[in-house]
Amino acid sequence: MVATPVLNFDLDAYATPRRQLIEQSLEQYTALCEPESLWQSMRYSLLSGGKRFRALLCLASAEAMEHLQPAGLTAVQAAMPCACALEMIHAMSLIHDDLPCMDNDDFRRGKPTNHKVFGEAMALLAGDALLVLATEVLLRKTPLQVDRQCLIEVAAELARATGPDGMVGGQVSDSIATGLVVPTKSLSEQAGLRTPVQADAPTAQLLESIHKRKTGALLRFATWSGARLMQANEDILSAFTSFGEVLGLAFQIADDLLDLTGDLQSLGKTPGKDQAAGKLTWVSIYGEEGSRRELALLESQGKSLLASCGLPDASTTALRALLSYAIHRRN
Amino acid sequence: MVATPVLNFDLDAYATPRRQLIEQSLEQYTALCEPESLWQSMRYSLLSGGKRFRALLCLASAEAMEHLQPAGLTAVQAAMPCACALEMIHAMSLIHDDLPCMDNDDFRRGKPTNHKVFGEAMALLAGDALLVLATEVLLRKTPLQVDRQCLIEVAAELARATGPDGMVGGQVSDSIATGLVVPTKSLSEQAGLRTPVQADAPTAQLLESIHKRKTGALLRFATWSGARLMQANEDILSAFTSFGEVLGLAFQIADDLLDLTGDLQSLGKTPGKDQAAGKLTWVSIYGEEGSRRELALLESQGKSLLASCGLPDASTTALRALLSYAIHRRN
Repeated sequence: MVATPVLNFDLDAYATPRRQLIEQSLEQYTALCEPESLWQSMRYSLLSGGKRFRALLCLASAEAMEHLQPAGLTAVQAAMPCACALEMIHAMSLIHDDLPCMDNDDFRRGKPTNHKVFGEAMALLAGDALLVLATEVLLRKTPLQVDRQCLIEVAAELARATGPDGMVGGQVSDSIATGLVVPTKSLSEQAGLRTPVQADAPTAQLLESIHKRKTGALLRFATWSGARLMQANEDILSAFTSFGEVLGLAFQIADDLLDLTGDLQSLGKTPGKDQAAGKLTWVSIYGEEGSRRELALLESQGKSLLASCGLPDASTTALRALLSYAIHRRN
Repeated sequence: MVATPVLNFDLDAYATPRRQLIEQSLEQYTALCEPESLWQSMRYSLLSGGKRFRALLCLASAEAMEHLQPAGLTAVQAAMPCACALEMIHAMSLIHDDLPCMDNDDFRRGKPTNHKVFGEAMALLAGDALLVLATEVLLRKTPLQVDRQCLIEVAAELARATGPDGMVGGQVSDSIATGLVVPTKSLSEQAGLRTPVQADAPTAQLLESIHKRKTGALLRFATWSGARLMQANEDILSAFTSFGEVLGLAFQIADDLLDLTGDLQSLGKTPGKDQAAGKLTWVSIYGEEGSRRELALLESQGKSLLASCGLPDASTTALRALLSYAIHRRN
């Protein structure tokens, strides 16, 4: 990660040791067991060197509450299983998104996609397995010092952020908007179902709603959950939730811009793909300039939210740096 | 359900009102929201009139502990969210199993399969959504009177029973045994992975291990979780876990026999399909007579386990009747 000029903070120095801990934990949670080929398939996608942005966000949010730590427990220890659960769900979403019946992608981060290596059936099952392993790790590995009702809320909220109200629902809306999913009317009617409501013509509102759920829900969960696991008060939880929403939208707008302006080497994927596919993006609605203006606005909003939540500035430096990173990154 | 001659107990009279409550709860947990077509796809498979065997088992297990109920809470209230979570995971497994990259089935219970109605992408996502909704319902809808650490253990165990050590892992082993999943050696090696270990030649041990995980893990979870939610003691939990294992194996052997001896009308699917596909089944290894002998043995074992766990006979009548049903059913 490149430290941004916005803050006098070395994001690399912050992220590198934490990323090492994340990798160690993920490695430990997915030690090879039987059936070995299933675990290999899961590990192939999970341990393929992502940026761990979601996990870092969750840890940074918990660390902002370090002063609330229960005796003998650091914020990183309290939030690490949750951070890893987030990475498992992210990995699962990429495996299923790449399947032939979805985006049908052959490469991801310069490597063959999961189903190209292990076959479609195994990729499907590896995704399913990662989805439930995320819950198991969160529930079993979160230290006992973390309040139990707190942990239950976090696990339930992770499920909500992943499911029909969150990531999966956003994926469905996106697929409907781009025409990938067209419910078979005649068969639905034959089965005695109401004809599904078709999404309205692509609009800014629809796009924002898709972004908020497809990528935003997990990012919002990341900033909320870190603080919740540390038993932050309602004011802080509310501010962190809004911060997560702002960051999530900024992350996706930056993604849309990168598709337009990025180069193959930095991106690790072909730029212009979304545009060529006629995909609904922020840039296609507001143009490059409009998107950059929105990003600047979101960066300022995010910082204000953190400034006004009553925590000392030093506690939220890493969160601010991660917001800036999300906006100014090159890949 | 047909009451069996084994017990002087009217299973229908027991199951019918509970099944109505299960349907009502499932209906309530999946009220149509946005994106509507996703919820329709989820509901299409979830509310398609299954026998609710897993849910009934979980409720019967909790009811056996009715004397331990916290004030103002019935066993059915305590266990209903868990029972419904089980049905959601079962429905999800059927949706994903039917996909073209898995069993490629066009019909299930006499209706077009989910992907034939909603398309492959939606069926994939509806399965994912049901998988996480199960966790959310269990965690959010289980009454607050149920001990929180208890609930955490039950949710973690549900994830384990579903994932690589349970249902999904059993599905992978089954797929390897039948040749559906053949990890692409050259690509695995190219990706720097160890060559996956191939399963041994089909053996009785392998088959039992597949059965125990693919269908057995959720059935064992069903009998354990009902008792655990009611804070049963270790002796009872251990007996109920063993009972669930015995019942799970019996359920699957009965399934294998039904494939051989059932008729189209009762089964709702073509009999002989497993045999024609050269599938590894109990009957293919032990023959019809050997399978029936094993079933008789399991029925007797299951009853002994319940008799020796210290509960009054009347408390476990429904569990015994469900075991007999699993063995003597016609579909």
